[in-house]
Amino acid sequence: MTGVPAPAADPAAHPWGARLAAAVRARESALLVGLDPDPSALWPGATPPSAASPADAAAHAVADHARRVLDAVAPACVGVKLQSASFERLGAPGVAALARVAAHARDLGLIVLLDAKRGDIDVSAASYAAAALGSTPTPWGPVEGLGADAVTVAPYMGRDSIQPFADVAAANGRGVFVLVRTSNPGAGDLQERPLGDGRSLWERTAELVASIGTDAARAAGPLGPERPALDPIGAVVGATAPDHLERLRELLPRAPLLLPGVGAQGGRVEDLAAAFAAGPGAGLVTVSRSIVGAAAPGEDPAEAARRAAESLRAAIAAVAG
Amino acid sequence: MTGVPAPAADPAAHPWGARLAAAVRARESALLVGLDPDPSALWPGATPPSAASPADAAAHAVADHARRVLDAVAPACVGVKLQSASFERLGAPGVAALARVAAHARDLGLIVLLDAKRGDIDVSAASYAAAALGSTPTPWGPVEGLGADAVTVAPYMGRDSIQPFADVAAANGRGVFVLVRTSNPGAGDLQERPLGDGRSLWERTAELVASIGTDAARAAGPLGPERPALDPIGAVVGATAPDHLERLRELLPRAPLLLPGVGAQGGRVEDLAAAFAAGPGAGLVTVSRSIVGAAAPGEDPAEAARRAAESLRAAIAAVAG
Repeated sequence: MTGVPAPAADPAAHPWGARLAAAVRARESALLVGLDPDPSALWPGATPPSAASPADAAAHAVADHARRVLDAVAPACVGVKLQSASFERLGAPGVAALARVAAHARDLGLIVLLDAKRGDIDVSAASYAAAALGSTPTPWGPVEGLGADAVTVAPYMGRDSIQPFADVAAANGRGVFVLVRTSNPGAGDLQERPLGDGRSLWERTAELVASIGTDAARAAGPLGPERPALDPIGAVVGATAPDHLERLRELLPRAPLLLPGVGAQGGRVEDLAAAFAAGPGAGLVTVSRSIVGAAAPGEDPAEAARRAAESLRAAIAAVAG
Repeated sequence: MTGVPAPAADPAAHPWGARLAAAVRARESALLVGLDPDPSALWPGATPPSAASPADAAAHAVADHARRVLDAVAPACVGVKLQSASFERLGAPGVAALARVAAHARDLGLIVLLDAKRGDIDVSAASYAAAALGSTPTPWGPVEGLGADAVTVAPYMGRDSIQPFADVAAANGRGVFVLVRTSNPGAGDLQERPLGDGRSLWERTAELVASIGTDAARAAGPLGPERPALDPIGAVVGATAPDHLERLRELLPRAPLLLPGVGAQGGRVEDLAAAFAAGPGAGLVTVSRSIVGAAAPGEDPAEAARRAAESLRAAIAAVAG
């Protein structure tokens, strides 16, 4: 460890790229556990208060489940990816539960990534960014957002749908991950379409991300040797399409790459070397079901999750070097 | 009016296309007022409870403002477009306020469109759809979603990011509007890119939307004369690019088109005839700032908003015929 701060240090005082790299080094892990709790498939043992409404009871149980998952796997992880949809479907109690889970993750020293895939423009994009990464001024005092370290963003609406996130992130020492080439079968419907110049749409998106990332890095300071190794604007790239990784690294030499799709979706850690090559924090593997649902029937889910996370952490370390 | 139900009738029993067309006919309006309240720029007069937290106070004031806007303009409108980001940035109290505003809009007989621009896959997309249009089963009973009549969806991740919304919408008599060609300057960054076959990306997106919409209409019943005039899957098309409307109507002959960008962004109602040509509900104009912020200094904001909304309603009617 150098003097670079751990993730829990005041984020606004340090660029995201440096903070992310320091966190990966300090925790010796590039693994994020994904949490997308289904109220009907939680680890056994949650006991919501009686007489609560369905939403309150489910939100309580989901938060309790999430806390137990985090307690079990945090030592093997650098962060947590929170699927916003899983909490939003429980209404206001779900959003309150999301905030409690994020706070617990921070207490465990984890980086908090909000997987929200937001995409809008102008004041609406700035509002989403404030909700995830910043705060909203009001006549009654500032309303703090979730306090996430980073958020995922969708690019269909173009640069002015990404820039407001980049601006709020930069002002708060936080990061952004833009969807570039996702891990789902439908990714081919638009992202793989060849453009008139022979490139695919995802390559064009990657260039847009690189441009915004370079601007953001330049705004944070001179692009000299003191510049953090990683830009603040990263990309989401499915581990299910590893043949794209080298090309993507060419287009985005300094972007952190968030890599979903390992495990249940078929991606393999050993195919991801090109993502890690740019140094600590350059590749982040996010795994949900293969950790949280690792237990065989009758097995302790926490112990199985801990083992699965540790095994993934080691597999990533072996590839990342 | 035929026997087709008003929007407040049981949505699950009637296809969205028929319900939307009936609402536009019954209210003699194709105007949706857009609400994206900024806590620092509300109509004067909100009095949040003292000793509330900043988030509680701001959420209370925002909901109160939204209710007053709706009371003023509802007679000129068929619905309201609620910008999710404006409420989400106030945390759980903001999400609770959103639900109260949606309920008030329903009480006024308005269609409720949640402008959330969600885009994710698989269980996450289904969760977002449940949050907006459906409900979530839990061991503690079902958790009802917002009860919106329709939601906006982003297409970058492809068909499997839209289909779960279409499925939940169909099961509940609700609708979906997919971003196709948006109204912002950055729309050109990706949407206008020519593909290898000479078409633009937004044309490819429109084809995807048409395919999902036709499938959804077929699943709802035979594609014969009894079929509603409108498909359940619509498209968002900026009024700032009216030269695309005829081509879009070719690609999406039966899709409701949601048309933002009139007023502050420069779009003009008189350029939108191609959108309305497919009949009542085929074109929906959504206007935010030009209504809510219509008042000159010293003028009553409610009276100015009412006048602005009525003037827009009449302008749309003149073009839609």
